Amino acid sequence: MSGEKMSDFVWPVRVYYEDTDAGGIVYYANYLKFLERARTEWLRSLGIEQDSWLAARVGFVVRQVQLDLLQPARFNDELLVSVEVLKLGRASVQFQQRVTHQQHGAELCVAQVKAACVDLGQADSGLRAVAMPAAIYEVLKSAH
Amino acid sequence: MSGEKMSDFVWPVRVYYEDTDAGGIVYYANYLKFLERARTEWLRSLGIEQDSWLAARVGFVVRQVQLDLLQPARFNDELLVSVEVLKLGRASVQFQQRVTHQQHGAELCVAQVKAACVDLGQADSGLRAVAMPAAIYEVLKSAH
Amino acid sequence: MSGEKMSDFVWPVRVYYEDTDAGGIVYYANYLKFLERARTEWLRSLGIEQDSWLAARVGFVVRQVQLDLLQPARFNDELLVSVEVLKLGRASVQFQQRVTHQQHGAELCVAQVKAACVDLGQADSGLRAVAMPAAIYEVLKSAH
Amino acid sequence: MSGEKMSDFVWPVRVYYEDTDAGGIVYYANYLKFLERARTEWLRSLGIEQDSWLAARVGFVVRQVQLDLLQPARFNDELLVSVEVLKLGRASVQFQQRVTHQQHGAELCVAQVKAACVDLGQADSGLRAVAMPAAIYEVLKSAH
Repeated sequence: MSGEKMSDFVWPVRVYYEDTDAGGIVYYANYLKFLERARTEWLRSLGIEQDSWLAARVGFVVRQVQLDLLQPARFNDELLVSVEVLKLGRASVQFQQRVTHQQHGAELCVAQVKAACVDLGQADSGLRAVAMPAAIYEVLKSAH
Repeated sequence: MSGEKMSDFVWPVRVYYEDTDAGGIVYYANYLKFLERARTEWLRSLGIEQDSWLAARVGFVVRQVQLDLLQPARFNDELLVSVEVLKLGRASVQFQQRVTHQQHGAELCVAQVKAACVDLGQADSGLRAVAMPAAIYEVLKSAH
Repeated sequence: MSGEKMSDFVWPVRVYYEDTDAGGIVYYANYLKFLERARTEWLRSLGIEQDSWLAARVGFVVRQVQLDLLQPARFNDELLVSVEVLKLGRASVQFQQRVTHQQHGAELCVAQVKAACVDLGQADSGLRAVAMPAAIYEVLKSAH
Repeated sequence: MSGEKMSDFVWPVRVYYEDTDAGGIVYYANYLKFLERARTEWLRSLGIEQDSWLAARVGFVVRQVQLDLLQPARFNDELLVSVEVLKLGRASVQFQQRVTHQQHGAELCVAQVKAACVDLGQADSGLRAVAMPAAIYEVLKSAH
């Protein structure tokens, strides 16, 4: 039910030449950009600006993506990218996201994305997961 | 067993500034580019050049990706991207791919990618899967 | 003077992780994406949608860019990208564009871009310039 | 004459789907990626690895680009990207670069690129030019 998930955040994305490839459709890697733009704007809509994190060398990094590409998007299409939290942990968030076509509503892409909060300062090794700042966790929890 | 899969094709990728982000690591969407470069070069190693397909408006498009990002890659790193066919159908191929660090061998990324052969000429609708040209299917089958 | 140029069209661009590099700033090639988004939206604001052109294999391609990168942009910055026509020909348009920082107004990038209208259908050779459709030329001329 | 310039460094670039757009040609911003890959590899050929710089928050950033796009490149093309130093200063280098088609030798793109050595540690302001490390300057000077 609505109590179980953060729903209905939707971010519009216009398809430009930069997003397409010689097949005439949106290049598959670029959906990951669209999905992240929506997650960034969803955080912003909750008052969370990631650049202050970055200054502290803390950030979300994506650990896992499951991407289903159902139908192609093309140059000039207007897309809607949704964000919904499936699961919130102290150091990670799991998202369900959808890309739909604004005009005719077709579902083009469905994705599950798992992001972890990490210490970006460890330049020479893996990225250790760290608990997200308490203030941010509380915001996400109340939105969840 | 080794008889069941096409293995050991490996393509080197150097990480340039273009591939990184302000977190100091390779931006997650760019792994999908690296994976596709390796698949393209694997096809080329079998004598299959995709531009002749494209002229006929036939091409592989990715339908599904499962991506596990285990460790980050950084500017200037030399990566190795492997290609292995898990399953070959008349109109689709399923790949297992790995990105490892050339120097210390760490596994950075594991992916399963399902690509379908489609008719790119249908500009206004979804991309209908079509059987791949017989000559190409035979090459992939003998390599599998 | 104002009568000589199309001025004051401005398109907002948010800097996402995808736009930055490991130096912590917007990767230089990405300004060309921002500039094109603004040109596309400027055409749209005049009622010109390029996807109908593309279907006819006619399109604008960039022939020349002069780019001055004055100050860096960073993750999360909000930028404004302007579009102004310097010179309009039958088969080409020359633009002056600026990228400024929305909050403090600093000029980050100044560019001159020359785009030509070409026949994209000639798959094997150079792209021959063609006069743009008369209806489009008239719209651009009245906006100029 | 040959004594006046660093010449003949050439780096091969294969055009993948990621590089193309719906017009069927290489997207114009991607030439700036190709040009930088060649500059990076040219530095590497001289024994200069930029990741050690980056750790010290020093790096080259591009200040100015003049780009002439003469003919299009397409999916699967093999390109050659040259690097030649036009002018070497204590805190900047000016390059002339060309992109040619490997098979038929056509010149596709000519560029002049001015890069400055800057202090990337100044997170909140412009990027102040700094003299490049003496060891690096000497290497570039002897190659020039």
